[in-house]
Amino acid sequence: MRNPHSNGNLPKLDDGRESNGYGDGVILGLDGGATSTVCVCVPFFPYGDRFPEPIPILARAVAGCTNRNSVGETAAKDSLEQVISEALVQSGSDKSHVRGVCLGVSGVNHPSDQEMVESWIRGMFPSHVKVYVQNDAIVALASGTMGKLHGCVLIAGTGCIAYGFDEDGREARASGAGPILGDWGSGYGISAQALTAVIRAHDGRGPETMLTSTILKALGLSSPDELIGWTYADPSWARIAALVPQVVTCAEAGDEISDKILVDAADDLALSVKAVVQRLGLCGKDGTASFPVVMVGGVLNANMKWDIGKEVSKRINKHFPGAQTIIPKVEPAVGAALLAMNFLAVKNDVS
Amino acid sequence: MRNPHSNGNLPKLDDGRESNGYGDGVILGLDGGATSTVCVCVPFFPYGDRFPEPIPILARAVAGCTNRNSVGETAAKDSLEQVISEALVQSGSDKSHVRGVCLGVSGVNHPSDQEMVESWIRGMFPSHVKVYVQNDAIVALASGTMGKLHGCVLIAGTGCIAYGFDEDGREARASGAGPILGDWGSGYGISAQALTAVIRAHDGRGPETMLTSTILKALGLSSPDELIGWTYADPSWARIAALVPQVVTCAEAGDEISDKILVDAADDLALSVKAVVQRLGLCGKDGTASFPVVMVGGVLNANMKWDIGKEVSKRINKHFPGAQTIIPKVEPAVGAALLAMNFLAVKNDVS
Repeated sequence: MRNPHSNGNLPKLDDGRESNGYGDGVILGLDGGATSTVCVCVPFFPYGDRFPEPIPILARAVAGCTNRNSVGETAAKDSLEQVISEALVQSGSDKSHVRGVCLGVSGVNHPSDQEMVESWIRGMFPSHVKVYVQNDAIVALASGTMGKLHGCVLIAGTGCIAYGFDEDGREARASGAGPILGDWGSGYGISAQALTAVIRAHDGRGPETMLTSTILKALGLSSPDELIGWTYADPSWARIAALVPQVVTCAEAGDEISDKILVDAADDLALSVKAVVQRLGLCGKDGTASFPVVMVGGVLNANMKWDIGKEVSKRINKHFPGAQTIIPKVEPAVGAALLAMNFLAVKNDVS
Repeated sequence: MRNPHSNGNLPKLDDGRESNGYGDGVILGLDGGATSTVCVCVPFFPYGDRFPEPIPILARAVAGCTNRNSVGETAAKDSLEQVISEALVQSGSDKSHVRGVCLGVSGVNHPSDQEMVESWIRGMFPSHVKVYVQNDAIVALASGTMGKLHGCVLIAGTGCIAYGFDEDGREARASGAGPILGDWGSGYGISAQALTAVIRAHDGRGPETMLTSTILKALGLSSPDELIGWTYADPSWARIAALVPQVVTCAEAGDEISDKILVDAADDLALSVKAVVQRLGLCGKDGTASFPVVMVGGVLNANMKWDIGKEVSKRINKHFPGAQTIIPKVEPAVGAALLAMNFLAVKNDVS
């Protein structure tokens, strides 16, 4: 296989086994996000228990959204074909080199969507190519555990969810039910509570807060009354969730209302992890066993002085001293590739 | 004027002044609700300070929704013409007898909608006929105060709002900003918290609650996981708010989670009234002055054993011993007619 990225220094495994010279083929990992789709091409390492770190990325391509509910079937399928073909061309491979494909998508509640996307991808490759479509939480977990499905992942971006696996492959989930059903630690939840605090202060039901001037300024509005029109003009979750930095700024400046909103969010996010860990028994019988907690999403990784991620970690470690919180070093598309590699390796062991 | 309802026993005012023998003309009161429009025709009583109780209803007609955002402009205008004309025919009057028309509509945040509907009604009548389009909270207040705009009204149905006027005509409002902005005492707010409690119990973040079996049974679902799909399949506020009776049933059966949701709702509704009363100084300087609080909507008037309306009244009276809670004896359309009468009477005094 011609490989323009090959520089003669192929990665070696720690235990001295020979690494993939790319002759074992490649894996495609895809992240089907809300606004774009990322596809990475990585070499296939047949020994599932050990991958080189960092994993070599042969190619990375980006296309538009591939969620058919957002952009329609034709556009979604076209984007998917385009991003896959671009990644293969960039890596110097073609479809015959592909061993497996894994796509992570949000919308775990619509299995029929996943099945349709899976059938599209199957149609693009020879029949022996393994195709996996997984929900984004599972791919996010894999991005922090080098593809191993063990431990818990906490995602807190626009929405939030905690998802986990024990060693036997049992799954559990908490939150991820959307804003109507109380995902209070999500970016949307934090922002909606901030907007509510502004309204309550304005109509005399709550204390004054710095959030009023900060949020009005950020949105270019002149009165809290205008927030009602602003909110319902386009109640998309992401648009409202984008106010989290304003809440953090106010909390850092000493605003008590903002501080309480963030403390409550940290409590709630930690509670979601706790629920998953306890249901799966990840902490062991004495509560001290070691397990990874992968932390993903803008709410957890914002790197501000008021650090929501750090506060959540603290709360998790108070309950479970063996919890190892991990911020993934690779993006979700790479997590998808690692996951595919682990699935293939397991299958090889069995056969 | 021919009046098929006249039976020779025309109402007399307490102070002996002559009542309207309908020769003074009629008033039309309209209630433009979410699903239907009601129009009542009542005799015009020129003395705005005193109306007979009960106010005689000459006719009552019902038509479809007249909210142009819901049904489109043509259908909205047609329904409006139809319900007005039917009420006039029923009452034995015609447009030449009409002195004033008042329509109560929800959607106080869209003044352009109100102006359009007002211009439609003006176009249906001679130019001397007074036409008023008011938000539904003001009409609801009038339905409890015989048309006088003084005191506070609390509406808690699908949504909730507190609205008030002092003797000088100053207005104040609290809540009414919709579910994203924290109307927690509304039917929607109560139901969303109940659904959240079911999800939290299911994924291990919260205590078990009777709400789980009760709500699943009411919705014909077999697992809390299915609630996510149910909620987002059609997130209309009214559909979710319709779960309030299930919450009340569980609270009456001793479910602590349900009881807490209702206690919080009662606290929040009372807080909205308190905010309005304090901003307008309705309770006087010593806090004991007498003023009406009109209570409207399915959440307040459900007549269950766990009586949310009674709990709200208790809390209001604890703060304001002079508050007189009133459940209106007449429907909103009659409130609209009383309001028109008061507006016309005030205008007569001035001229």
